[in-house]
Amino acid sequence: MKEIVTFFFGLGFVINASLFVPQALRILKTKSAKNVSLITFSGFNLIQFDGVLYGYYQNDWILMYGNLISFITCGTVTLLAIYYRNR
Amino acid sequence: MKEIVTFFFGLGFVINASLFVPQALRILKTKSAKNVSLITFSGFNLIQFDGVLYGYYQNDWILMYGNLISFITCGTVTLLAIYYRNR
Repeated sequence: MKEIVTFFFGLGFVINASLFVPQALRILKTKSAKNVSLITFSGFNLIQFDGVLYGYYQNDWILMYGNLISFITCGTVTLLAIYYRNR
Repeated sequence: MKEIVTFFFGLGFVINASLFVPQALRILKTKSAKNVSLITFSGFNLIQFDGVLYGYYQNDWILMYGNLISFITCGTVTLLAIYYRNR
């Protein structure tokens, strides 16, 4: 049972991380991020970064790598939102 | 110690839920959601809805209500994104 719960916990991170990809593609497609809130996505980045550190100190690799992949895809959205800010 | 961890776990949900508010305000301010990805936010909604049910079956009120407030603020973004879709 523990393995199943662990599997779905890890899967949750993968799904969460992949959900940022459509937002990144959307900004690229419309070549603008006027409607995208920087506070929202940079805020998520902070939570994910904290999650990576927390996972590291807890020696919980799923928590660490799970937050890391979300940090990467969400970070991409944040960078794109900054780059396309005033276009 | 358990109380502290529980407190921060609940606080994490409150922060997560409140992070959707700037995105909702951004759509209202720009009166458009062209750059906002519906897949991203409706995907988060599904995860949160699943989290509410999971918390309910686990009798874990923090998990349930934590996901519920995120579901409400994120749901507002999703509805606004639909409403302002083609403006």
